[in-house]
Amino acid sequence: MGTICHHTMSLDGFIAGPDDSMDWAFAYGETTSLANETMKRIGAILAGRRWYQLATERWNGVGGIYGGAYDGRVFVLTHRPSDKSEDPRINFVSDGIEEAVATAQTAAGDRDVGIFGASLSQQCLQAGLLDEIVIHLAPVLLGGGVELFSGGDGKRIDLERISLGKGEQLTDLRFRVVKQ
Amino acid sequence: MGTICHHTMSLDGFIAGPDDSMDWAFAYGETTSLANETMKRIGAILAGRRWYQLATERWNGVGGIYGGAYDGRVFVLTHRPSDKSEDPRINFVSDGIEEAVATAQTAAGDRDVGIFGASLSQQCLQAGLLDEIVIHLAPVLLGGGVELFSGGDGKRIDLERISLGKGEQLTDLRFRVVKQ
Repeated sequence: MGTICHHTMSLDGFIAGPDDSMDWAFAYGETTSLANETMKRIGAILAGRRWYQLATERWNGVGGIYGGAYDGRVFVLTHRPSDKSEDPRINFVSDGIEEAVATAQTAAGDRDVGIFGASLSQQCLQAGLLDEIVIHLAPVLLGGGVELFSGGDGKRIDLERISLGKGEQLTDLRFRVVKQ
Repeated sequence: MGTICHHTMSLDGFIAGPDDSMDWAFAYGETTSLANETMKRIGAILAGRRWYQLATERWNGVGGIYGGAYDGRVFVLTHRPSDKSEDPRINFVSDGIEEAVATAQTAAGDRDVGIFGASLSQQCLQAGLLDEIVIHLAPVLLGGGVELFSGGDGKRIDLERISLGKGEQLTDLRFRVVKQ
């Protein structure tokens, strides 16, 4: 019933390392209780075009989402009319972001929409369309890669910490986005 | 007996907001137990020149450190030979960073050295001179300002979470820097 951006993030703010590497995150070998809860809450995914490309080329496509545990639909926001996929779970949408979120929300039913990709998360935030931020904070400084929150424009957005959890190495943080 | 970088940081990685504002951090009105512990551990401060200028112009100088609770010496790393202060607690040093840390450590005795300023913290990190990172994570996205970890050069630095604490709004994180 809401939108969630859900990521493992380094203390210096990266959700992917240099060259889009995700190995550093998987290497913790840890699925925290908040990660499990969040996965179960997600009924549909809205992903950015760049995320889709990386997922297809490098991460075993949709089958790689949540280590194969996700079996819902994935909506990919694209501006390329030629985008097609043979995977019936993948749907390309070329609407504005508000319409795209609404489409994914309809597919999610009474569950939530997972927002995948740094740029798309930032767009949703700026448009007031993001409800929750779920972070597994990793004890590492990656020094480069894809920053989750790099696109801020100086507009302050307040959050409310809903929960805090201690994984073996990861720190679970769940925030509600306070709407203005 | 070590060096600590100690900051309140927003979830998007800023330790000062746009225009170097610190009001957002003070507004939480919260001094967590980790903050109190860390203050007590700090026997001397090594600060960057930019931090010093801001402290002097805007934050009540050395008297403003830890809300006036700090009464030790402050070493300011500067390349301007003309720098002088009438405050006897302020010492300008123009050495390399390694020598500057050693000088501050001597003054700290059996206590720790607080590293103040984003650029100086980053320099210490890169030089292998930072032992601990203490963060009070604030539930806010500032969208701009001074980033603590912006200067990474792609070199990964592993951390070990030593403690995790739940303030009313702030999240206390203490990390040890894993030396290579």
